[in-house]
This record gives sequence, C-alpha cells and structure tokens, in this order.
Amino acid sequence: SYDMANENDEVGIVRGLAWTSVGGDTLQIEVNVMPGKGELQLTGQLGDVMKESARAGISYIRSMSEKYNIKDSFFKENDIHIHIPEGAVPKDGPSAGITMATAMISAVTKTPVRADVAMTGEITLRGRVLPIGGLKEKILAAKNANIKTVLVPDKNRKDLDEISEEIKKDLEIIYVDNMERVLQEALTNHAHEIMQKKADK
Amino acid sequence: SYDMANENDEVGIVRGLAWTSVGGDTLQIEVNVMPGKGELQLTGQLGDVMKESARAGISYIRSMSEKYNIKDSFFKENDIHIHIPEGAVPKDGPSAGITMATAMISAVTKTPVRADVAMTGEITLRGRVLPIGGLKEKILAAKNANIKTVLVPDKNRKDLDEISEEIKKDLEIIYVDNMERVLQEALTNHAHEIMQKKADK
Amino acid sequence: SYDMANENDEVGIVRGLAWTSVGGDTLQIEVNVMPGKGELQLTGQLGDVMKESARAGISYIRSMSEKYNIKDSFFKENDIHIHIPEGAVPKDGPSAGITMATAMISAVTKTPVRADVAMTGEITLRGRVLPIGGLKEKILAAKNANIKTVLVPDKNRKDLDEISEEIKKDLEIIYVDNMERVLQEALTNHAHEIMQKKADK
Amino acid sequence: SYDMANENDEVGIVRGLAWTSVGGDTLQIEVNVMPGKGELQLTGQLGDVMKESARAGISYIRSMSEKYNIKDSFFKENDIHIHIPEGAVPKDGPSAGITMATAMISAVTKTPVRADVAMTGEITLRGRVLPIGGLKEKILAAKNANIKTVLVPDKNRKDLDEISEEIKKDLEIIYVDNMERVLQEALTNHAHEIMQKKADK
Amino acid sequence: SYDMANENDEVGIVRGLAWTSVGGDTLQIEVNVMPGKGELQLTGQLGDVMKESARAGISYIRSMSEKYNIKDSFFKENDIHIHIPEGAVPKDGPSAGITMATAMISAVTKTPVRADVAMTGEITLRGRVLPIGGLKEKILAAKNANIKTVLVPDKNRKDLDEISEEIKKDLEIIYVDNMERVLQEALTNHAHEIMQKKADK
Amino acid sequence: SYDMANENDEVGIVRGLAWTSVGGDTLQIEVNVMPGKGELQLTGQLGDVMKESARAGISYIRSMSEKYNIKDSFFKENDIHIHIPEGAVPKDGPSAGITMATAMISAVTKTPVRADVAMTGEITLRGRVLPIGGLKEKILAAKNANIKTVLVPDKNRKDLDEISEEIKKDLEIIYVDNMERVLQEALTNHAHEIMQKKADK
Ligand SMILES: [Ca+2]
Ligand SMILES: [Ca+2]
Ligand SMILES: [Ca+2]
Ligand SMILES: [Ca+2]
Ligand SMILES: [Ca+2]
Ligand SMILES: [Ca+2]
Ligand SMILES: [Ca+2]
Ligand SMILES: [Ca+2]
Ligand SMILES: [Ca+2]
Ligand SMILES: [Ca+2]
Ligand SMILES: [Ca+2]
Ligand SMILES: [Ca+2]
Repeated sequence: SYDMANENDEVGIVRGLAWTSVGGDTLQIEVNVMPGKGELQLTGQLGDVMKESARAGISYIRSMSEKYNIKDSFFKENDIHIHIPEGAVPKDGPSAGITMATAMISAVTKTPVRADVAMTGEITLRGRVLPIGGLKEKILAAKNANIKTVLVPDKNRKDLDEISEEIKKDLEIIYVDNMERVLQEALTNHAHEIMQKKADK
Repeated sequence: SYDMANENDEVGIVRGLAWTSVGGDTLQIEVNVMPGKGELQLTGQLGDVMKESARAGISYIRSMSEKYNIKDSFFKENDIHIHIPEGAVPKDGPSAGITMATAMISAVTKTPVRADVAMTGEITLRGRVLPIGGLKEKILAAKNANIKTVLVPDKNRKDLDEISEEIKKDLEIIYVDNMERVLQEALTNHAHEIMQKKADK
Repeated sequence: SYDMANENDEVGIVRGLAWTSVGGDTLQIEVNVMPGKGELQLTGQLGDVMKESARAGISYIRSMSEKYNIKDSFFKENDIHIHIPEGAVPKDGPSAGITMATAMISAVTKTPVRADVAMTGEITLRGRVLPIGGLKEKILAAKNANIKTVLVPDKNRKDLDEISEEIKKDLEIIYVDNMERVLQEALTNHAHEIMQKKADK
Repeated sequence: SYDMANENDEVGIVRGLAWTSVGGDTLQIEVNVMPGKGELQLTGQLGDVMKESARAGISYIRSMSEKYNIKDSFFKENDIHIHIPEGAVPKDGPSAGITMATAMISAVTKTPVRADVAMTGEITLRGRVLPIGGLKEKILAAKNANIKTVLVPDKNRKDLDEISEEIKKDLEIIYVDNMERVLQEALTNHAHEIMQKKADK
Repeated sequence: SYDMANENDEVGIVRGLAWTSVGGDTLQIEVNVMPGKGELQLTGQLGDVMKESARAGISYIRSMSEKYNIKDSFFKENDIHIHIPEGAVPKDGPSAGITMATAMISAVTKTPVRADVAMTGEITLRGRVLPIGGLKEKILAAKNANIKTVLVPDKNRKDLDEISEEIKKDLEIIYVDNMERVLQEALTNHAHEIMQKKADK
Repeated sequence: SYDMANENDEVGIVRGLAWTSVGGDTLQIEVNVMPGKGELQLTGQLGDVMKESARAGISYIRSMSEKYNIKDSFFKENDIHIHIPEGAVPKDGPSAGITMATAMISAVTKTPVRADVAMTGEITLRGRVLPIGGLKEKILAAKNANIKTVLVPDKNRKDLDEISEEIKKDLEIIYVDNMERVLQEALTNHAHEIMQKKADK
C-alpha cells in the first residue's frame, strides 16, 4: 500500500520513492534526533548500499554544518535514527540518498519539510545528485499517493521524456543536481528562507 | 500453550499476539530496567526485524521523553532488557512493535499495564501504528487466553470484518493509530491520568 | 559420565539436569565472580538459547539486587564467568535457566548451595519458572547421580505423573514456579534465613 | 557513464580510473574531513582489497604528516570519509590507491587538485607506486572523459607502448614511482609550491 | 616433529600433549605477560573449545589471585598472550586446559616450570581436572620427547592400565584432580615452596 | 615479478620469501609506526595464520622492550601498520614471522635493515625460529632478486643439503634459531652494535 502524502508539513519526515519488482512505491522516511553519543541507527531492513548511502548523507551534512547553522558538537552529543517502515520489507539501493539526507537535515535543524513533495536520487559526499533507475514506476507511485511535486535527478531528464504526459500532467517535476537545490524545494518556503538568512550572516 | 492473562496489573509486562504456522499465540513481553550504561538487551530468540522493531520503539520513547516525564540522562544511566519467553522458540516480524514499546514505557515510568489487554501492531519512529498480518488467528488466541480488550491497528479494520461475530462477541476491539492511543488503553486508567497531568504541566 | 553430587555445600556451584539424544545427564554449573568491569563470560560450548537464558538470569538478579543485598555498583565492578564442563560437548536450550541463575546468586552473595539438590527450568526476566522437556530422563539422571532433591517447574506436574514410582521413590520432588521458591530450597537453610532477614530490614 | 572532468580544481576530489569486464571507466573519488575521533569511513561498495588500499594510504600520510604540515593531533580529532559513487556498483582492487591517497592529502591540507588530471596506481605504506592492470582500457576511458593528464605507474611503461598513438596523442602521460611525484603533478602548481615551501622550512 | 623437553626450567613455557589423527604429539605452550589493559590474546590457530578452555583457566587464576599473591590490578594492567606453535596447524579441544593455566600462572608469578614435565587435562573454573581422550598416544609422545614426568587426570586412571608397562617404565605418571596438585608437581620445587609460604602468611 | 633488493639500507622495510603454487617469490614487508593508541594494522590480504604470526611477533617485541630500549608506553601511544604489497595477492602461513618481527623492531627502534638480506622462518612468542616449507623455491627467488644473504631456520639445515651447489654458490646462507641471531645479521652492523651497547648498560 502507498504511504499517502501527509496532511501537514512535518519535521524529520520525508517522502521517498522506491522501485520494486512489482512496481513503484512510496516510502516515508522517518528521522529522530535524540541526546546521545554520536551514533547513527538504521532500521527497517536496509541493505548495505542503502546504509552506506545514509552514511554519505550524514557526512555531507557534517561537512556543511557551518552553512546549516549546526554546532560542531551536535554530532557528538546526539544520536540520529533513520527508520523506514514497513519494517519487514527489505530495502536497498542508493536512490533514497537525497531523501534520507533531507530528512536528517530537517530533523537536525528542526525545519519542516513540505508534505506534498517526494524525491529520488543518489547523494554523493559533496551533495551532488546522481541519476537513479525505475523513474517511470516511481513517478506513477508518487501520483497515486497524491504527491504534488517530485524532485528528480537532473541526469534523469531523458528518462522523463519517455513517460506519458497523462501521468505527468498534474505533477510538478523539478530537476535537481545538488542538495542545496533539493532543500530549496523540499523545505517549506518560510523555513528555507530563514535557514538562508542565518547562513548569510 | 497460551500465556493466560495475568491476574494483576503489572509494571513492564505486556501481552502480545503472535501468528505462527500452527495458528495464533499469545506471548508475554517482559521488560526490566536496571542501572547501567544505556544498553538494550534483547533475548528470547528474536529475529532481525523484531530487534529493529524494538529499537524503533526505544527511539520513539527517547524522542518523547519530555512528554513522558523521563529524565534526559535516563537512557544513558540505565540498561533496558526485553525478554520474550519461551526462550527456545524463534520469533520475528514487526507486529510486536507497539507491545514492546508499551512494556518499555511501563517499565521506564513504573506505570502498571492492564492485565486483561493484549495488542498487536507495527510501530514507527514517530509512534504511528501500522497494520499487521494474521489478525484472525491472533484474535482467537487472545480470546482463548481470557483477554478482555485487544488493541488492533486502525488500518486492519477491514480484516476484522471478516472475523465471525461468535469470536468477537466477548472481546472489546479498540482501533489504534498511534502510541498515545495505545497507552491510553493499555495503561491502567489511574496511571494514565497521572501521566497526562504531569505532561500537561 | 554423571557428575555425582558434591560432598559439601559449595558457593557458585549448582547441579543442573540435561537431556540429550542418548538420555539424561547431570551437569555441574560453575560460576566465578572476579573484580572486573561488568562483563559476563560464558564458556563450555553454550548455544545461543542457553546464552540468552544466562543473560535473562543476570538481568533478573540485577533487577532484584536490593532484595538480595547486592550493591548497585557490584555489576559494574565485577565480572561474572559461567562455565559448564565438559568443555567439548555442545550444550543448548533454556532449561538450565534457573540453575545458572541460582549459581550466579550464590556466587554473588557468597551463599552456599545444597550439594544434594539438582534442578531444571526455564527462567524469565521476572523470575517466573517455565516448563521444560525431557523430564523423565532428567529425573533418572538425578537419581543415578545420588541427588536427594530435584526442583521441577510447577507446569511440569503432569509430566511427573507419567514417571514410575520406582524411579521417584527416593527423590524429593519439589515444584517451583518462581526463583524465590527455587532459592528457598537450593540455598542451605541457614544461608537462606540470613538472606531473608537482611532483606526484611 | 563516464564521470567527466570537473570544470574547476577542487579540494578532496580526485579522478581515478577503473577497469571492469565491460571496459574502462572513470570514477570520482570524494573525501570529506570532519571534526571527529579519528575514524575512517569507506563507502561506495568498496571490496576488501580496496579498503586495505585506503588504509595503506592513510598510514602513508600519517607517517609523512610532518612533511605535509599536518598536526599530530589531526588524525585523532578528525574523521575522514572516502566515498566513491556510484554507490550500487561494487568496486575492488588496489589500483585506486594513489587516487585515494591524493584525495585524502588534498582534503586534509585543503589543497586543490587539478580537475584535468586522472591517475591509477597501487600505493605502498612508504608511498611507492606499484603497477596495475587494464591500462589500455583506463587510458581510453580517461580520454573519453576529457582528461588532459594521466599519471601512470613507472612500472607500467612497457604496457603503454602497446597502446596506439591515436589514443595517446592528446593525452599527457606522466610516469610516477612515488607519491611525491604524484602530488607534484596532481596538486595545482601554486598549491604544490606552497606545500613545498612550508615543508622546506 | 616432537617438541623435545627443554634443557632448562623456564618461566611461562609448559609442555602439553596433543592427540591427532596421526598419533600423539607434544606442544610447547608459550605465555607472555606484557604491560597492557587486560586483554587475552590467543594465537596458533586455536579452535573455539580451546579458546574457551584458556578463558576458564584465566578466570580460575583471577579468582585465586589472593592465594597466588597476584595483585587485584594485575589483570587490568597487563595483557596475557598464549601462543602455541606450530602456527599453521589447527588445534582444538579442552585437554590443554591445565597446561595453559600452568603456563599462565608461571608467567604471571614469574615462577619457573620444570622442563621435564608434560601434562594433559581439562580444567574447570574451580580448578578441577577432568578426564581427556587419547591418553595412550599422548603418553607415547611424551616418552619420545624425553619427558620424565607426566601429569594425568585422576579420572583417567583406568585408561592408563591399558597401556603397556614397556611404554610406562621410564615415565613417572602422577594423577592429578585439581590445579593445586598440578602446580605442586609442575613448578620447580623451590619455587612452589616459596609460593606456598607467601600464601600461608 | 620479484621485488629486487633495495639499493639502500632502510628502516622498517625487510625482504621476506614466499612460496606459492607457481614457485618462490620475494616480498617486501613494510612497517610504519605512527602516533596512535596501540593498534596493529595488517593490510595486503594477509590470512589468519599470517596475522597471528604478526601478533606473536609484536608480543615478542613488547616482552623484550627493555632489552631493545623501547619505552613501556611506546605500544600504548603508537600504532603499528604492517603492509605487504602486492595488495591484491592473498598471502598466508607462518613463515614471514621473523621478517615481520624484524621489520617492526627496525621501525620501532629506527634502526636500518641491510638491503641485501632476505629471511624466512616462523617466530614463537619467545623469539625461537621454527622451520618452514618450500625452502628450495625461496632460495631460488632470493638469488633471482639479487639478495646476498639469506637467513634460514636452523631446523631447515637438512632441506638445504638437497639444494644444488649451483643455486647456493653466490648466496651466504646463515642458520638462525632465535630472533637475536636474526637481528645480529639483518640490522646493519653499526646499528646492531649500538643497540647492543645500549642494552648492555
Ligand atoms: Ca508500501
Ligand atoms: Ca520553494
Ligand atoms: Ca506459547
Ligand atoms: Ca482507559
Ligand atoms: Ca556428563
Ligand atoms: Ca530449605
Ligand atoms: Ca561510471
Ligand atoms: Ca605541476
Ligand atoms: Ca609437532
Ligand atoms: Ca614437586
Ligand atoms: Ca611478486
Ligand atoms: Ca652482522
């Protein structure tokens, strides 16, 4: 069953898109931040590639912490837990990279994420967004889950051309090639402006 | 053999419902809290999915610690042990999620749980309750073990319709979609009111 | 070969009963307590279920430490080692649970255990005693090893009825359903009385 | 798809060359340095040989830290993360050794690396450069990715003779037999001069 | 090839007896004690049972440290390394238990062991000596290696009767049932007397 | 390809001899010592036996630290990294024991090793040198790599008789039975004399 779009913008929850043998699916990535000692917990039957993807994401955030107004000590004094329901379903691959990174930034900075946005894309250590597979099935799943805006890797542009207008017509497709662009679209406008202003000082 | 309903409301003990190849079963989840250094012990031949489910539960509790009047230092200065008898029987799956979380909250806050309540449901990091399988067999097992009230995920409503009135007639079925609702029903009324009042201050 | 009953009541040594493909056997569980940093060592080719059983036992003891006059810091400042000879023989199952717990309590509190007592039973985190298998073979092994008293889970009563009077006639069979009852019988009378008095204060 | 040459010289990003069953490829090795406790993270589905190669590289750098003006405490107070996109593709072998070492030195010393340089070569603990396989395919991949200069192990000279002039004509091939020579070519000229001057003092 | 008896009594070196598919063998167990942090290193391709046997031995020694004049802090401030050459030959089983324990006591207390003694026997946590297999082959190996005295578990007496007088005639066979008896024979007389006197105070 | 003899005596680099299915080979063992916290890193695809051999070597050195003028705190405040190129080739067996130990002593004491010496031999915890296999192939490899002196375990004397005079004629073969003898030959004369003098004080 699809995870339908949330009704409210929330902190630490971001909608991802998955591609399985039976079609596309949405998955709601949850991140909790808790006082701790710098551990990263990953639950929900994540495979090795997906776990590494989460680690790349957190390193990206740590290396950008000054920009995002995160204190140096934050990652030593807190634990971060990423969970992806449904807990019995194995999940793998790098395509939830930007989704997990966005959920972590949202949770760490307490910035809400737009409830009507979903996204897919591999993340690199420097925040580049790399192309992913199964785009057609993912777009269809997003549509069925009442998503309004879908963030897609810039390098997947050609794959989108092959998707019928019928499917795409009520979706806003935004091409992204780095995490800053992802955040600009995924964080609520107001929140993003505040983050920018703080960073500009 | 079924674990029959306890005679007394107890702290840190909650009745779960399991579904095996030979039918439904009840299992009595036990939680002990001990002075320690923040470790989580899981015994009783729990599989990977079930262990992750326990970890999602504890992160939920940690993130809600202010609400539940738990000191920040609690999870650094205590160990939590979840054990599920019978120790030789392998157990797995996410459906004991809310049961383990309830037992932990009960043990951590020293709040008794109603002896005549059983429950089943996957928990997410934010305390949402997700649907589970084998509901019919579980309901039957609850009935046989003299349970009075069964908490069932809200998203399993349709599955309940398929169960005969004969089976359901002496059971109170309560639909739950988040952990707060679970606690409202599972904790003894008096205990729950006190927890609420403290949280309201 | 059977481990024959000891001649003297000893601290940290308790007779257990095992059930293998070739019949019943006795095994002498040894526990040493040493200044350390809170580690639990388990040797003698114990399987996963048996190791978890030992961990359930130690958590039970830690949660009852006030009652048994054990200082909070004890489990941080000491290591506990459980060894079951014969070291090359694999051992598994939950039925040595109460035996290991009794040996640990004896070693931690320096209280001697009756040399003529043997026991079998799964332990839960709260000290309940659950039923076990192979009772007939175990009783026979106890008799052959010159044991005088055998502690048996209360829920195995019906299994005992099936054992011939010939075998049972010189054995005192005591039904137990919780660890307190086990200790009442296994610890030497004098020692148990002292432990009780201290706890009553 | 090839990782095309970057447009700008960057810190902590170096172009490597890989050889797979389907031909040569380029891969962009990313290194982030973050305040931490001396851990080395390796992501991107790196095999055992490649991980050991990264460890040899970091030990080389640590042993040369005085020369490279790196404080002794640096490696205790920072974490280093090496990531190689594309995260789902398994990668192995020792031939990215000098590439990973160059990226680490660049990131640790904040010295930019020339965007139009690619390299291949095994590294030893003392910074020697050992020969690698698949040179022809790698050279071809470098050419296709708009690389201008390729660093090749000195002991691969004979392999280069077998590559057609057509392929080599617009590429500058530089033979290297130790890490100092690699850095001399890979770091931007200005940066390298500054590093040398500091070391000479 | 047999490890022949040493010419000199040494500290931390004890001769054991092994039984393989091709007959008996002697092996020279070496123990080094080094300033450290309480770690136990086991090398020489020791199997799981043998490693547990070493751990039972060290726990026995720790629990007897007062008797052997070893300071409480010793096992926190030193590392113990047990190595059994020949390093490529897998070794397993519990029968080197008393040999490893004797070598450790010798190394820890700096007490020399008689060069002409060999021994075999399982050790328990309380220092009991349990019977072992392959006695005939082991006795023969001891004889061939110029051993003068062999320590044999008391419970192997019957096995010794089956060995021809021809083999036994130049060997002193001493039956042992606990570690104190082992040390009495294995440590050089003078050293043992001193250890006793210190303990008697 | 053979690792040819170095031109200069170096610190922390020693030539070993390996024996594979395709004949003998030389391998250049590299050791770096770095400020750290007492860790031993082993890279270059070393098998379990070889890793244990390295650990036996380091324990030997630690136990002899007074003799070699190494401060007690050295092994707590430094990391030691042993790397054996070529990193993709699996290596195993105990015969590099004395080579790794010599390289470590050289690196720890900053004493150069003769560039024209190669060696083979298992090391024990007490510095004894045990015999190895494949001597003929190893001697041939040493000759081909321009080695002048080869250190061979004393217990391999008989194997050397079977090697033709043609092969042996330009090689100096020195029999060694303990690490002190190894160092006497492998360290440069001057360095060894200084080490001796310091030790004699
Ligand atoms: Ca779904
Ligand atoms: Ca926007
Ligand atoms: Ca049951
Ligand atoms: Ca209620
Ligand atoms: Ca037995
Ligand atoms: Ca009694
Ligand atoms: Ca590629
Ligand atoms: Ca240049
Ligand atoms: Ca041998
Ligand atoms: Ca004597
Ligand atoms: Ca080679
Ligand atoms: Ca010399």
